[in-house]
Amino acid sequence: MNEFALIDAFFKKSALEQTNVVFGIGDDAACLNIPAHHHLLVSTDTLVADVHFLSSFDAYDIASKAVRVNVSDMAAMAATPHWLTLALTMPSFKPSWIKRFAEGLHDTLKQFGIVLIGGDTTCGPLSLTLTIMGLVPQGKAVRRCHAKLGDKIYVSGPLGAAALAVAFLNQDDINKSDMKILMHKLQHPHPRVDLAQGLQTHASAAIDISDGLSADLHHICEASNVGANLNFSAIPVHPLVIKYKGEQAVYFALVGGDDYEVCFTVPAEKEGAFIAMLAKQNLSCYPIGEISAEKGLRLIMENNEIVPFMPQGYSHFT
Amino acid sequence: MNEFALIDAFFKKSALEQTNVVFGIGDDAACLNIPAHHHLLVSTDTLVADVHFLSSFDAYDIASKAVRVNVSDMAAMAATPHWLTLALTMPSFKPSWIKRFAEGLHDTLKQFGIVLIGGDTTCGPLSLTLTIMGLVPQGKAVRRCHAKLGDKIYVSGPLGAAALAVAFLNQDDINKSDMKILMHKLQHPHPRVDLAQGLQTHASAAIDISDGLSADLHHICEASNVGANLNFSAIPVHPLVIKYKGEQAVYFALVGGDDYEVCFTVPAEKEGAFIAMLAKQNLSCYPIGEISAEKGLRLIMENNEIVPFMPQGYSHFT
Repeated sequence: MNEFALIDAFFKKSALEQTNVVFGIGDDAACLNIPAHHHLLVSTDTLVADVHFLSSFDAYDIASKAVRVNVSDMAAMAATPHWLTLALTMPSFKPSWIKRFAEGLHDTLKQFGIVLIGGDTTCGPLSLTLTIMGLVPQGKAVRRCHAKLGDKIYVSGPLGAAALAVAFLNQDDINKSDMKILMHKLQHPHPRVDLAQGLQTHASAAIDISDGLSADLHHICEASNVGANLNFSAIPVHPLVIKYKGEQAVYFALVGGDDYEVCFTVPAEKEGAFIAMLAKQNLSCYPIGEISAEKGLRLIMENNEIVPFMPQGYSHFT
Repeated sequence: MNEFALIDAFFKKSALEQTNVVFGIGDDAACLNIPAHHHLLVSTDTLVADVHFLSSFDAYDIASKAVRVNVSDMAAMAATPHWLTLALTMPSFKPSWIKRFAEGLHDTLKQFGIVLIGGDTTCGPLSLTLTIMGLVPQGKAVRRCHAKLGDKIYVSGPLGAAALAVAFLNQDDINKSDMKILMHKLQHPHPRVDLAQGLQTHASAAIDISDGLSADLHHICEASNVGANLNFSAIPVHPLVIKYKGEQAVYFALVGGDDYEVCFTVPAEKEGAFIAMLAKQNLSCYPIGEISAEKGLRLIMENNEIVPFMPQGYSHFT
């Protein structure tokens, strides 16, 4: 089976049909109809074998993670994901691997209502580049650069589990059911697309947590020309991180990456309405601090001690 | 310099500002305003080192080629390219290489009026995945699947030079000025975006020639459920291919890839108007045959002998 038959067999049929896809896979480009009064959001992420995931991972999980990482970029903009292109580079043609990969891909796309509209399959070291496209009502995308002094800082969920999973990858003395939960957090993060309306209406800035809370919040602060004070005891940490790391647990939240929750800011005067909307939608988020005029990040400890915290996160070339 | 500083230094400033870019690089996604009465065209292509180009090539040329390959997909749809995302995976951080790459990228984007709106830089074996987005008036995109019996088959330019360049890569006995011309055709193909209006108005089907004329025309035929008769002597071959390959030259055109010309079909009744439009726009194209009801490709030789031709082209996994 050559690459064209491969594309036909595994990728041509997307899980969903959509009225705004004029045509998808099978031409030199896909054709989309963008509804009026909306902006198009576009984001690209690459996942490289043995950098972003282990080659030995189940191909189903690799595909699932790749989609979720890209969906997370839409969630962070308060956009709704709709369309995806997939560029898949593989060292060899293994139908069983591709079949499993395609299953993970289509299951995950279906879960988020996304249509695969195109892609490229090439021969080379295993890596994936996905480009995701989504929609937001005109002018409602939430950027990094509009956080203001006094804005409340939120995160959408408990952090640190994915980083702990990575730390435990080569350890075989971890409780198996705990490890299963941690690996699920690493391989199948659930981006908070459900927050889109709340963020569009109330958030001043947002980012997804891929490099670690401190590094990603720092991106908001730098883009907005502000700083942040975080309440140390308010930072939500996954219970298994607390179980295994005790007092160090919060540093997994601050420095560990791959959480794919959203960190965002809400102006103080909108906080009441935001919390009411969350409650109405049966959603939860965690207030963790406040934007300050003074640059940099600071941790406010339980004894009110203020500890400067140097943002740290993953960097590919250092 | 870490990856964030890298992005700032080389990629953040795009060569052109565009009114339809609400915001570009610097957030989790770029934001575009799609003008009314247009369709969005989206295409992705990956180029892998030592598969699609040699690692030893000048980074300027690698970037230029990558952009042009993607622009070619827009040209084949009769669309005008506007926006690009770039996912760049590199084994190490070499500022001189990246600087040169960025120069090639920005020079080429400027030439085609394209804005870089986002991307990702990761560490791994050298490869690039570009996603290009363009516009076409609603309903005017030209697909592969609408070629009809009797339609005239055209190609937009002489073929075979890029394939000859590849064949000569490890030969050092080729005339240097000839090799320079051939390498230019390989590394800096010029996609025929100038044909957009002509194709929108008159073409029934189109594809870009990346895998070789016979393989790509075969894609049109399969998608349209037809066949093709090609006039052997009408197939335009680059003069240097004729110089070096003589009677074999036309096979470089039929089987060699990387030309990035457009192969398209024009209904017989529209051919006069199409030729008149080309003349008015001072553009040239080459009629090479006719769509047949009988499946498969056939070469009509100068003595009127009909020779079946099995489509051949590049496949990554065979």
